[in-house]
Amino acid sequence: MQAIAIRSGKLVFEDNVPAPTTKPDEVLVRVTQAGICETDLQLVAGYMDFTGILGHEFVGFAQSGKFSGQRVVGEINCNCRNCDRCKAGLGNHCANRSVVGIFGHDGAFAQTIAVPEKNLHQVHDNVSDDEAVFVEPLAAAFQITDQVKITDDQRLLILGDGRLAFMCAIVLKLTGAPLTVVGKHSGKLDRFNALGAQTVRLGAEVAPESFDVVVDCTGSPSGLPLAMQLVRPRGTIVMKTTVAASHDVSLAPIVINEINLVGSRCGPFDQAIAAIENGNVQLDSLITHRFQLRNALAAFESAKQGDAFKVVFEISNSGESHG
Amino acid sequence: MQAIAIRSGKLVFEDNVPAPTTKPDEVLVRVTQAGICETDLQLVAGYMDFTGILGHEFVGFAQSGKFSGQRVVGEINCNCRNCDRCKAGLGNHCANRSVVGIFGHDGAFAQTIAVPEKNLHQVHDNVSDDEAVFVEPLAAAFQITDQVKITDDQRLLILGDGRLAFMCAIVLKLTGAPLTVVGKHSGKLDRFNALGAQTVRLGAEVAPESFDVVVDCTGSPSGLPLAMQLVRPRGTIVMKTTVAASHDVSLAPIVINEINLVGSRCGPFDQAIAAIENGNVQLDSLITHRFQLRNALAAFESAKQGDAFKVVFEISNSGESHG
Ligand SMILES: [Zn+2]
Ligand SMILES: [Zn+2]
Ligand SMILES: [Zn+2]
Ligand SMILES: [Zn+2]
Repeated sequence: MQAIAIRSGKLVFEDNVPAPTTKPDEVLVRVTQAGICETDLQLVAGYMDFTGILGHEFVGFAQSGKFSGQRVVGEINCNCRNCDRCKAGLGNHCANRSVVGIFGHDGAFAQTIAVPEKNLHQVHDNVSDDEAVFVEPLAAAFQITDQVKITDDQRLLILGDGRLAFMCAIVLKLTGAPLTVVGKHSGKLDRFNALGAQTVRLGAEVAPESFDVVVDCTGSPSGLPLAMQLVRPRGTIVMKTTVAASHDVSLAPIVINEINLVGSRCGPFDQAIAAIENGNVQLDSLITHRFQLRNALAAFESAKQGDAFKVVFEISNSGESHG
Repeated sequence: MQAIAIRSGKLVFEDNVPAPTTKPDEVLVRVTQAGICETDLQLVAGYMDFTGILGHEFVGFAQSGKFSGQRVVGEINCNCRNCDRCKAGLGNHCANRSVVGIFGHDGAFAQTIAVPEKNLHQVHDNVSDDEAVFVEPLAAAFQITDQVKITDDQRLLILGDGRLAFMCAIVLKLTGAPLTVVGKHSGKLDRFNALGAQTVRLGAEVAPESFDVVVDCTGSPSGLPLAMQLVRPRGTIVMKTTVAASHDVSLAPIVINEINLVGSRCGPFDQAIAAIENGNVQLDSLITHRFQLRNALAAFESAKQGDAFKVVFEISNSGESHG
């Protein structure tokens, strides 16, 4: 089959990879669409030393099992169901986990992917592929409201104007609370304005210590210091992006202002799917670029550019055999 | 009056300071005992550029107002009661606050101190001065259980074996949950053993990611990385001590393990006083050194030494006029 992988540290398109084999709890999914996310760019840059097929945001058709023939999306943490964490309901933090397209498990930039059946969620016909491909990052954004109780009288701030920031904005708008977004790119900020958020260019004045909840989606070492400056005492900072390298920072404001810093990673697929199915969130026109798998390099270049919002692979399976 | 102050960056004993004057909401308290805490050592080392009379852990007799003649302890944050934070119930984070003996307000290493009357709490006769002088740091420890819900099935860890760590240990033991303490000094750790905590010398093996709540009382840049290593995914790290300088750290584990990092500062005096009055906490034999104010330098030297636990000033007011 066709796939996009990192091999020996390099991003490559492969025209003739063997189709994946399934472990006992896994089923095959024929991928129809898959999105490039920031993590993919980081993996290509060497993060996690990943080797294998990339891609973790996808929609496709299950080829076997209880969802056979159905359109599905898939959670990315593959857990053992046996360790203490799995037993404690922390499957996403399973000590033995692999992560689809990120760690120890081939991903979805391929014609077919093997995924644990329990990771799959069916999406109904009223949800398009263009919407379904956002379930994974949208779920990650819903994790924020799962972890932090937000009421509509709170002042919310997002740092960053990228793809994940936008997913977070969509979810935070659902709370009814006023939302401000600080970003670098006026072009990208327009999208947040259209969503009803107030936007501020990075560097423009923002009242210090004035937000109840600040979500750092910058992926930059400068995000946290700014967040600490803008959150109110006893407020909450949600760290939504990792900075892989260590960096110099003073955390004294955390103690002095008794800030609550919450790391936030993957989220509830059911909430994301329901929000799309019920029409509570609008994901129209977020896909700015569409590529075939064989144009991997161009697609990744495109995803790095400022004018790109979402870059997806449209994956055809003509001529392939599945099952 | 006699007092110990920082003047021009130096720790000095002063034999003839004018007695403090009171602002409209303040009363005078004749100090009988005051303790040296880590923050005092930091202030002497230049933290906050403090100038004035030191000391924020004290017990004494109110000289006027509704507590006149009563033995009292005092909260250290002097707030304006007028700003948005005060109105929101966040008086300890008042934008216009001064802090007794720490920021913009003379402290308690003196024969008399001026304190807002609303900061005072009466202590009953069954509480000795030797106990009452611990109310402020004990209250700071009770802030942990105010901020973080702890149940007796959680595994608790304290990093550090100093004075504040011990106050935290006293409070965490009240939860009934098993408590481990990691510290550098076997002599100091003995005290935690006696309290019923399991103790581990720093460097000895501790199972990674195995604690539900980790309280960092190290005051060291090495505290947080160790806390991130030992807390379980979705667990809580309480930062109880500030590291004034910025330092190099990778916060990626916060996101990957969805850790909750909570800054924690001053705490509820009422809980601390009640715990002492009810005999729920034992503060016997914590005071290892007692000094007169005029022996300021020796007292501070002593507080820095490993064999010291609590160093207090016993303050006499013979020959002074008050009121
Ligand atoms: Zn992603
Ligand atoms: Zn597991
Ligand atoms: Zn103190
Ligand atoms: Zn105020």
